[in-house]
Formats: sequence, structure tokens, C-alpha cells
Amino acid sequence: MMIMADDIDILISEVGPRDGLQNANGVMATTAKMAWISAQARAGCREIEVCSFVPPKLVKGMADAADVVAHGLTLPGLTVAVLVPNLRGAIDAMATGAHKITLPVSVSESHSQANVRKSRTQMIEEVRAVCAQRDQLAKEHRPVIEAGMTTAFGCTIEGVVPERDVLETVVACVEAGADEIGLADTSGMANPQQVKRLFKLAKAEVDDALQGVHLHNTYGLGLANAMAAVEAGATALDSSLGGLGGCPFAPGASGNIVTEDLVFMLESQGLRTGIDLGGLIACRDIVQAALPNDVLYGYIAEAGVPNVFK
Amino acid sequence: MMIMADDIDILISEVGPRDGLQNANGVMATTAKMAWISAQARAGCREIEVCSFVPPKLVKGMADAADVVAHGLTLPGLTVAVLVPNLRGAIDAMATGAHKITLPVSVSESHSQANVRKSRTQMIEEVRAVCAQRDQLAKEHRPVIEAGMTTAFGCTIEGVVPERDVLETVVACVEAGADEIGLADTSGMANPQQVKRLFKLAKAEVDDALQGVHLHNTYGLGLANAMAAVEAGATALDSSLGGLGGCPFAPGASGNIVTEDLVFMLESQGLRTGIDLGGLIACRDIVQAALPNDVLYGYIAEAGVPNVFK
Repeated sequence: MMIMADDIDILISEVGPRDGLQNANGVMATTAKMAWISAQARAGCREIEVCSFVPPKLVKGMADAADVVAHGLTLPGLTVAVLVPNLRGAIDAMATGAHKITLPVSVSESHSQANVRKSRTQMIEEVRAVCAQRDQLAKEHRPVIEAGMTTAFGCTIEGVVPERDVLETVVACVEAGADEIGLADTSGMANPQQVKRLFKLAKAEVDDALQGVHLHNTYGLGLANAMAAVEAGATALDSSLGGLGGCPFAPGASGNIVTEDLVFMLESQGLRTGIDLGGLIACRDIVQAALPNDVLYGYIAEAGVPNVFK
Repeated sequence: MMIMADDIDILISEVGPRDGLQNANGVMATTAKMAWISAQARAGCREIEVCSFVPPKLVKGMADAADVVAHGLTLPGLTVAVLVPNLRGAIDAMATGAHKITLPVSVSESHSQANVRKSRTQMIEEVRAVCAQRDQLAKEHRPVIEAGMTTAFGCTIEGVVPERDVLETVVACVEAGADEIGLADTSGMANPQQVKRLFKLAKAEVDDALQGVHLHNTYGLGLANAMAAVEAGATALDSSLGGLGGCPFAPGASGNIVTEDLVFMLESQGLRTGIDLGGLIACRDIVQAALPNDVLYGYIAEAGVPNVFK
């Protein structure tokens, strides 16, 4: 179960080094990844998804996953999170001592096949196998296992995803042993009312196991949806520095919601993230220098922090 | 008083031909303005702010204001709105038969001086004079007079604008005879909680005279703020096709919230705008052809309407 520190209201989980880099044009050097992660942790970021454990031939730029985790583990107070598609990746990740391991579980059958070549039922069994593996570790070494409900708000292949399917999958993953559930708007299709409704419905099923949402900004509703999630009780939000990674099927549209803009929105309202906005914006220089051919998005970095911001 | 048609939930007031063009790089030809206004009215837009009545030497591209109003008045069902800075402009606007006249009243003293070279108190007196002028017309020819509370959510010069000052100005403008009040986030500084709080406070003061908000997207919170306004009871929202006009002090940041994205957000949630999204997006071609050196913003036009949208 995620432990929320008393001194923040919303945990921002930076997914740029994983979700962002996986969809970037360039491949970032290991030293640059480490510099980025260090700088962002120093700016106050408490959780960073630093890499994925996937076959290097399938995803470019993740061959240094173990080294990046090892670096993250040297940073005090940082929760080092990783993504894995299956048990094989989870075993690799556990060997590194990563604090948190997320498995994507597609609610939509077509997306599940396209993304991980497994059915939804098979992925729930994969979650069960990963949790069994976790339970073989001594308690103090067990990572948090999160099941991320991809396509929870819609699917580029199937369109509308029935909420009943989402809730069934949420419950099945908790029964399979997952410590945490995340609701993921994989392709940015969610709207604010939908986010509120589905978050509350899922919360009613699994209570504290559900804390967060993973939102994309494909159609520009990312921050409105983030606000809706917070109003519905979400205390953890994924986002990416500079909205890094773009969106493969929508050139010019940013991918994940932009961490800098999210921090600005939340802190403007007195919702504490623990993150220093200036320090966070400065991280963009590291990323841009290492990825000269990728576009960094974000309004607050472009327009400058306004004089009303404390 | 604004009359809300039964068949829509939210009135979108397109301000691109005025606010957008006033801040655009290029000057749009009169024929292109007319084609744009016609196309957008045909797409279902019920209210368009078509121009401002200002000295042509101060604002480029508004010398054809009377012709543009005359064109708008030929379009069935369209409310033709205009902006004026003072009584002089209001008299010109009334002579054209425009349906609605908005005066900007800066809550912040410094912005008021910078924008219209008058104090806030002097602008309230200007509203009174305009309303007296309105009352000399036969009832069936009287335009709706709106006072737009600029800098209601913050000022680039003064920073935080006390809410008490906003409420005082709102009440003073209604007492001076304004039919409608709008709350304007002139420089995009508002946050969702602030929008909700201030809208409700102002509504408690003047009830039905307050319907709408005018939001900018300078810091990326435009749609989140729009959603907050709707949740607080707003039934009218200003926006600009393509977020046209940019933001003079923040290159690259869009100005007004983007009409296309706003319609997508509202309609996705079953909030009826009366606007056909496809027809609206098609209007961008007219604008882009007429303003080749201006950037049109907007996520939904870039990414394409997703398959979940009905």
C-alpha cells in the first residue's frame, strides 16, 4: 500500500524516464538519465518510474534499466518505480531492488493482444504470478506491485470500454495480489465527468488499493481530467516532464500530462506536491540537451511563472 | 438578460474575430472575416463577438467593424456581439444594431489605466453612461450591455486581485445598469478552485446577471478552469477558434481557450453546445488561409476526433 507522506497532498509520479523515453525520437544516454532523475528528485519529486524491463530488441533505450534503477536507489527518499510487461521482467526488476513494479493490464481485449500479446485474463494471471514471486521475498524486500488498468477510459481499437469491464478487472487484480491499482487513460480519451465517476466506482470496490490515475493529454483534457481525479479523491497522479514522448498516432499532440503544468495547477490551489516548480522547470535543460530532436511541451515553462504564484 | 435556448446547456461565445484578431500577427480581410463568421454560425455557434469599435489608429484590423456587424445581422439565430472601450464606441456600435455590447472594466487599477487610460471608477461611470444611452432606444432596439470584469483572477501588474474588489465592481456595474456581468481571466492566471469560488461569490451578489466567464490558456489551465466554471454554474463561456491571437507576453502560449477543444470537452460529457464539431474544425481552414503567418492552436484538430466521440 502506498504510504502518503504527511507533508504532501498529492504524490506526483514522474514517468518521463520510462513512458516518455519509450515514445521519444531520440535515445537518451545513461548518464543523462541519471542526471535527470537526480535533478528531479532534488527538486522534490518523491516517485519516479525510471525504466521498463523489456527485451531491448523490442524497446529501444531500456537496455540500461538495471543501472538506472541502481542509481535511483542511491537517492534518499525516492521511490524507484519500474514498468514490466510480464513475470520475466518482474523477476529482473525484483533482482535490482526496485521499490515498485507496475504491470499494464489492458481492460480492452484488442489492446491487450496488441500491447502484450496476451488476453486480459492471461495478464491477470501474470499479475498473480508476479505477486507470488514477490511473496517469496523477505517482507522488507518486497516491492509494491501495481496493476495499471490501461484503456480504462476508452480504446483506440474498440472505442468505448464498458465501466463494468474496468471494475471487474480492478477487482480481479486486487484478488490476484496487487497492492495498488492505477486507472490509465492510455490514449487521452477520458473526460472529467467520466474520470470522477469511474474513479469513485473503482474506489468503492477496492478502497485504499486505488490511489492514482495515469492521464494523457492527447485531446487537451489532461489537466481538466487531473483536477477531476483529485476532486474524486485521487492522491497520486502520473505525469511526464515536458509531456515527453509525444503521441505516436497524433504528431504534435503531447503524450502524458506535463509535470510542470500539473505542479503549477496543484500548488496554485494550495495542494502540496513537495516539488519546487523552479527546480522542476530547470530539469528541462538536461532533457532537452540529451534529446535535441524531441519537443518538450508545457505552458508554464514557456510563459514563465506568473506573479500570483507563491 | 441573456436568454438560454432550451436545446443547449452551455452557450459558447466565439471571440476569435475580436479578441483573436486583435492579437493576431496578420490583418484579416473583411471578406474572410465574413466567411469565417458565416461558417461558424452555420456550424451552430449562437453568439460571436465579431469586432470592437475602437479608433483604427489604436487597433489594426477593426476599421471594418460596421460592415462586419451588418454581415452578422444577416445570419439567422446569431447573437452579434461587439466590444467597446467607452461611450464613444458604444454609440457607434448601437448605430449598427449589434445585439450585445461588452465594456471591459478592469478590477485592478493599474490595468485599468494601462488598458483604457481610465480609473475603475471612471469605467463604472462609462458603463452607466452607455446604459443611459441604451435606455434612450426603443425597447426592441436595445442591445444587451455586458460589463466584463477584466483581471478578475489576477493582474500582470499588481499580481493578486482581492476578491472583495471584484465583487464590489460586479455589484457597481449592475447598479450602473449593466444587463450582464462576465468574469474575465485576462492573463490566464486563474486556477480551478479560484474560478469556482469567485463565480459562486459573484453569483450570490447578482444572481442571473452573471452567466459567463472569459478564460485564457496562458498557463495551460484554460479547460480545467472552464470545467470548474461549469461546475460552479456558469452557462456561457468565451473561447476563440484555434486559440487565435496568441498571447503577446508569452510567445508560443495560446491566448483564449480553444473553441474546438472546449466543444469537444463539453459534448464528450453530454453538455450540449449546439455546435457541430466537424463543422467547427472546418472553419480553421478559412482562418488559416486568411492569416498564413498566425499559428492556430488546439488538440482536437491536431489529433483528430477519437472513436469514442458520438
